[in-house]
Amino acid sequence: MHVGAVKTDRPLISLLAYDDDGIEEHRFQGIDESRAYRPQHKRLWLNVYGLQDAEILAEIGRRFGLHPLVLEDILNTHQRPKIEDYGTYLYCVARVFEYDGATRTLGSDQVSLVLGENFVLTFQERRSGTFEPIRERMRIPDSPFLQHGTDYLAYTLLDAIVDQYFVIVDRLGDTAEDLEDDALASPTPALLKTINLVKHDTHLLRRAIWPLREVLNGLIRGESRFFSADTRLYLRDIYDHLVHVVETLDAVRELLGDLMDIYLSSVSNRLNVEVRILTVLTTLFLPATLITGIFGMNFQVMPLLGEDWGFYVAMGMMGSVALGMAAIFWRRNWLRL
Amino acid sequence: MHVGAVKTDRPLISLLAYDDDGIEEHRFQGIDESRAYRPQHKRLWLNVYGLQDAEILAEIGRRFGLHPLVLEDILNTHQRPKIEDYGTYLYCVARVFEYDGATRTLGSDQVSLVLGENFVLTFQERRSGTFEPIRERMRIPDSPFLQHGTDYLAYTLLDAIVDQYFVIVDRLGDTAEDLEDDALASPTPALLKTINLVKHDTHLLRRAIWPLREVLNGLIRGESRFFSADTRLYLRDIYDHLVHVVETLDAVRELLGDLMDIYLSSVSNRLNVEVRILTVLTTLFLPATLITGIFGMNFQVMPLLGEDWGFYVAMGMMGSVALGMAAIFWRRNWLRL
Amino acid sequence: MHVGAVKTDRPLISLLAYDDDGIEEHRFQGIDESRAYRPQHKRLWLNVYGLQDAEILAEIGRRFGLHPLVLEDILNTHQRPKIEDYGTYLYCVARVFEYDGATRTLGSDQVSLVLGENFVLTFQERRSGTFEPIRERMRIPDSPFLQHGTDYLAYTLLDAIVDQYFVIVDRLGDTAEDLEDDALASPTPALLKTINLVKHDTHLLRRAIWPLREVLNGLIRGESRFFSADTRLYLRDIYDHLVHVVETLDAVRELLGDLMDIYLSSVSNRLNVEVRILTVLTTLFLPATLITGIFGMNFQVMPLLGEDWGFYVAMGMMGSVALGMAAIFWRRNWLRL
Amino acid sequence: MHVGAVKTDRPLISLLAYDDDGIEEHRFQGIDESRAYRPQHKRLWLNVYGLQDAEILAEIGRRFGLHPLVLEDILNTHQRPKIEDYGTYLYCVARVFEYDGATRTLGSDQVSLVLGENFVLTFQERRSGTFEPIRERMRIPDSPFLQHGTDYLAYTLLDAIVDQYFVIVDRLGDTAEDLEDDALASPTPALLKTINLVKHDTHLLRRAIWPLREVLNGLIRGESRFFSADTRLYLRDIYDHLVHVVETLDAVRELLGDLMDIYLSSVSNRLNVEVRILTVLTTLFLPATLITGIFGMNFQVMPLLGEDWGFYVAMGMMGSVALGMAAIFWRRNWLRL
Amino acid sequence: MHVGAVKTDRPLISLLAYDDDGIEEHRFQGIDESRAYRPQHKRLWLNVYGLQDAEILAEIGRRFGLHPLVLEDILNTHQRPKIEDYGTYLYCVARVFEYDGATRTLGSDQVSLVLGENFVLTFQERRSGTFEPIRERMRIPDSPFLQHGTDYLAYTLLDAIVDQYFVIVDRLGDTAEDLEDDALASPTPALLKTINLVKHDTHLLRRAIWPLREVLNGLIRGESRFFSADTRLYLRDIYDHLVHVVETLDAVRELLGDLMDIYLSSVSNRLNVEVRILTVLTTLFLPATLITGIFGMNFQVMPLLGEDWGFYVAMGMMGSVALGMAAIFWRRNWLRL
Repeated sequence: MHVGAVKTDRPLISLLAYDDDGIEEHRFQGIDESRAYRPQHKRLWLNVYGLQDAEILAEIGRRFGLHPLVLEDILNTHQRPKIEDYGTYLYCVARVFEYDGATRTLGSDQVSLVLGENFVLTFQERRSGTFEPIRERMRIPDSPFLQHGTDYLAYTLLDAIVDQYFVIVDRLGDTAEDLEDDALASPTPALLKTINLVKHDTHLLRRAIWPLREVLNGLIRGESRFFSADTRLYLRDIYDHLVHVVETLDAVRELLGDLMDIYLSSVSNRLNVEVRILTVLTTLFLPATLITGIFGMNFQVMPLLGEDWGFYVAMGMMGSVALGMAAIFWRRNWLRL
Repeated sequence: MHVGAVKTDRPLISLLAYDDDGIEEHRFQGIDESRAYRPQHKRLWLNVYGLQDAEILAEIGRRFGLHPLVLEDILNTHQRPKIEDYGTYLYCVARVFEYDGATRTLGSDQVSLVLGENFVLTFQERRSGTFEPIRERMRIPDSPFLQHGTDYLAYTLLDAIVDQYFVIVDRLGDTAEDLEDDALASPTPALLKTINLVKHDTHLLRRAIWPLREVLNGLIRGESRFFSADTRLYLRDIYDHLVHVVETLDAVRELLGDLMDIYLSSVSNRLNVEVRILTVLTTLFLPATLITGIFGMNFQVMPLLGEDWGFYVAMGMMGSVALGMAAIFWRRNWLRL
Repeated sequence: MHVGAVKTDRPLISLLAYDDDGIEEHRFQGIDESRAYRPQHKRLWLNVYGLQDAEILAEIGRRFGLHPLVLEDILNTHQRPKIEDYGTYLYCVARVFEYDGATRTLGSDQVSLVLGENFVLTFQERRSGTFEPIRERMRIPDSPFLQHGTDYLAYTLLDAIVDQYFVIVDRLGDTAEDLEDDALASPTPALLKTINLVKHDTHLLRRAIWPLREVLNGLIRGESRFFSADTRLYLRDIYDHLVHVVETLDAVRELLGDLMDIYLSSVSNRLNVEVRILTVLTTLFLPATLITGIFGMNFQVMPLLGEDWGFYVAMGMMGSVALGMAAIFWRRNWLRL
Repeated sequence: MHVGAVKTDRPLISLLAYDDDGIEEHRFQGIDESRAYRPQHKRLWLNVYGLQDAEILAEIGRRFGLHPLVLEDILNTHQRPKIEDYGTYLYCVARVFEYDGATRTLGSDQVSLVLGENFVLTFQERRSGTFEPIRERMRIPDSPFLQHGTDYLAYTLLDAIVDQYFVIVDRLGDTAEDLEDDALASPTPALLKTINLVKHDTHLLRRAIWPLREVLNGLIRGESRFFSADTRLYLRDIYDHLVHVVETLDAVRELLGDLMDIYLSSVSNRLNVEVRILTVLTTLFLPATLITGIFGMNFQVMPLLGEDWGFYVAMGMMGSVALGMAAIFWRRNWLRL
Repeated sequence: MHVGAVKTDRPLISLLAYDDDGIEEHRFQGIDESRAYRPQHKRLWLNVYGLQDAEILAEIGRRFGLHPLVLEDILNTHQRPKIEDYGTYLYCVARVFEYDGATRTLGSDQVSLVLGENFVLTFQERRSGTFEPIRERMRIPDSPFLQHGTDYLAYTLLDAIVDQYFVIVDRLGDTAEDLEDDALASPTPALLKTINLVKHDTHLLRRAIWPLREVLNGLIRGESRFFSADTRLYLRDIYDHLVHVVETLDAVRELLGDLMDIYLSSVSNRLNVEVRILTVLTTLFLPATLITGIFGMNFQVMPLLGEDWGFYVAMGMMGSVALGMAAIFWRRNWLRL
């Protein structure tokens, strides 16, 4: 079972061993290399980016005694967040999101977390920076972090995931606020597409966050012995955060609903302004048409008809009435879009 | 009391006996056949699909000591979810749903569940796959499932029912999202019908789910001795799930309400666009009509009237003004639907 | 104090005496008759339909030691649901509703309930079937019901009242759903009237149900010694039911609010369709009018004017243009309502 | 310090002394008069209507040992409801409302309540009937009320204030319901003004009620030793009432929001009906104008032109077409507002 | 480290030392000056306005033993409200707001609060009056305030911050109410801008308040030993206040959402009124145009054509019909905007 040079498209295994005495970090090029390695510290955090190499997973599964069902679930990256107690370890599925500012798209990835007595395993399909701040906190010399058990590490990882939800929800909220101005000023179909895109993103987020809430609820109610009473208090904090995220997300969803209303009203008002212009145009022609009608009547005795300049007087009347009306409408701003 | 070959339109009785030592499964062609059968294991799960044969029910009722009222309730398949404590057993009514993707209709069926000390009886009118995964989990050799009592089995059955609600609510949510695009692009009466259909489905679901919530609430509050304290903890999970389903369902209902607004606004805007086109057409004719009016006036001295090519000049004027205006409107997209 | 033959417009007094040993029922033609009667069983339920005969009330008041204020409240049938503790008995006011399917109206009646240690008194102005199922449950031989105290009877009566709320709220919900189709298809003023009627009914229900919730809340919190701890658990169930009714009612109210929006949008769209037809008609006349204008010009040299068939060619042009346009509009469905 | 004959614009001091043995009532014309008076009963309730005479307040403050800040707060009648613990007494500010049916305006007044061990002081700027029912309950001979401490009196006073909120919120709700019919039938600017007025009233109420909720919450949580555990149970009732009032108020606010929507939609539909009538009028003239155009063409050979009765035939055609169309529109109700 | 005369753009350091015996206040021109100063009282409150001089912060950090991360956070004034426990002291970040009535803008500033056993440090970028009332309460001779520990001071400071939120939310609410009248009377784009501005302000406030709620929640749940049980009860009050602020803020946000709807409906109705006027104008010209058409027909025998006064009769007819119609429309108010 050989894994070559680590490329972006190759799995990346990193091991972080720590305890009260200190910390050591190691990146493995392949699973073979890792076999020879003996960590100096008691508690382990093994992180795997990239799940395409089933061999690696199988080996990790063997060493940490994972159930085949867990390995299956790690590979099947489209699951609902959930938590499962396998007796000697806890298997937890969550979802991380990354918002790409350039393409304005929301990418998501499944995080599988296995919490045993002295180890935490995390698996993700793509590399992400979500856990980097935690590594940095751990690397600080004499960090109090190292004195906590692996349950605290698991809490920190979950916390980092939830913190990222905040960032993304805030960004979606900002986008929604920006769109509101556009919806009033230029309600184009392109804008509508963007509104629907953001709506879809909030939908995705909600589906990922809601079940996580239940997961945490279960952990807090003390159904699991993997978390110490102290750490369980912290889980309560994450729960509070999640509630906050969900409420903020709902506010964004509401904003988007309002946005749709504004968009549709805006389109409607724009159409009405256009119809008003057209009606003004119609009205401008009416008096002129009436004048031509008058001088088209067949009375034997009619003024002006016999005069040489009669025609020009009629044309002048038409023009002046139309211009006068146009001036009135112009001052009322009825000729502008 | 004979039941012939099991056809789709004939009742199907399946027995699953289990305890810590193992599991045995049996399907009976008729109730006679079952009389001779003696299960080797202590705990029984008897499932009946098809309620048309009252004899079968009566026989089951006699053997398990069911009250005639229970048998009546099992046959009357249009009840609200409820739970009733008959002293030696618990009778529970729930409702399962199946969404037919082809016909886009939501079918529902009543599940009657009787939980006694060492048996669980389930009754459904139609065959459904809802309980199949549970059977498979039980068939796994040395499954820890077999070590739990029948209360745990009852919990698992309820859980399977509630899990299916999720699937259906998610599907309704997806349908609602799809309809939104249609509501904006092509607001047809057919779409409106579909919206109302989905609305009706959410209504049905809500009626089935809400009372179940109360049922579970009662069980959790410990009014029943049929569930052990451990299993009651699990019931709490189902309750959480139900709350989640109800909230998601409400979100879908809200979405459908918004959809109706979007549909109506969309129809209104479409009508306005059509009126704008008609008004543009009217406006295009106005200058031409004015010109005919001008040359129809009866002044004795008028330019062009005496020239041979006068008529064609007038026609040219009409055409060029109309074309010029049409070009302006075209560039503004006022002539497109 | 004599009360003649019991007619619909005469008060109807029925007594139900029961205890662990059995049950006896009696209907009295008058209050005199009741004086001679000595019930064999300990617990009493006295029900009075019709409050017009103050003598009956006064007599009952004397026998059961009711405070004059209670008698006054029983007669004053427009009170808010409330509960009052008079030391030796509890006085409770609730409201029952009956939905008349024929006239589509919601009638309501006040129920006064007095709960003493060994008696329950109920008073209603009109006869209703609300309590009939309870009587039937009590008549079942060896019914476990009879072993409970009068507090359990009081609970059952309250439960029956609340159960009826469900039926009515569901019916209002169904009506609201039906109206939605009408609101889209034919938004007539008559429909609007119906919407407002149903709205008013939900308003009435809400006013009756809300305070009952507080009443129950008080009972559950244990402020009253009239309910045993066991029965208080059941009161919790009623409370849950009431919360459910209120939520369902709110859903109906929301539906009605949406309905009003749909009605108004529907009216608006219908008006727009009508305006579109009128505008199409206008547009159909435009080319014909232009053609008459053209052939009405006074150019000396013009084609067709001198031909015998010129007029008919012009008429043909008019007709064919109008028909061509009408065909286009017809295919676009712009000529249909 | 003399206070003359009690007029409406003069302060009115009333003293109510009571204990288990009985009750005595006294109204003072001035503060001097009160000095000589020695109440026979232990518990005192001193009520002052009218705050313009600072001397009275100062004297009361001296006798009951009130802090100058409290006297200041009593005089400053625009405070938020609050509660303050001054060690030997509790100072509480609430707000009473009175709805004037004639002028349809909502007046409000600050109530200051001081609760000491054996006394309750209440101060209001204007006379109101809010506390009258309490006085009457106390006057009933051997009223159980008299056996409770002053904390119970304080509770009863707060309860009376909150009960009045109900009355006013219900009246606002009724007004809102009435306005709905008007909004549909005759959406005039005057109606809009009324809607906004009621909206403003709900706003005022909300501001008074919300902080009171917090005040009660504090009392219930047991932060004050002035209320016995028994009375604190009653405070819970008031809290429930307040929650109910707030919910009902929110329902009214929502109703008013809907009302605004209905008003605006109603105005819009009315405008559309008017535009439809105008468009119908336009359409009625079109065929007639076309006919005049046809007979105004200059073809040399045209039917009817040479006949003596030709003109009348043409006029008849015009009239009959217009009448025919008018009949059609009339039957469709398109000519009615 | 010298700090010159205190100008508005220079940091301002004020020290308030107090204990049960009394209080002393001192303002330092520079940090040097402060070195020589020895406070007579045990508990210290050091307040710094202006964070541009890093030296001052560094010195304070050294003396009170603050972690460099805390100093960094104090200087970085764009953080989310949070609380951090550094073992010997608690670091808390909140946000204060000031509403400038003149420019109608909402300014905000970060407040950093450090709570140690015997000291409270507060840091703000700009001077504000938020804490002035607290200083005045402390200066009152023999104020009971002085007997509380620094945790009580910290509570009071947080309370002052939250109280200010009330003021600002109420002001935003008033602004929103004012805007509603404008939205109905004159829906201009300028108004729309103001609505969006206020909306943005509510958004800012919400972001500041929400996390503070979680911070307080954490403190109340007793995760910190810095607050005594007594003071923790008071924190509960602040929490209640915050909940109230958030609910009021949500009401304002809802109001603003409604406002947008009213604005858009108002614009729409105004447009419709304008289109109605234009349509009325069109209608006024129709009969006149028909009359000219009639007298323009080429029948050989037509009434009036041969009369000298015929033309004037026709003109009179046109004028009187138009005036008659205008009168009708005028009485219906269809000619007014």
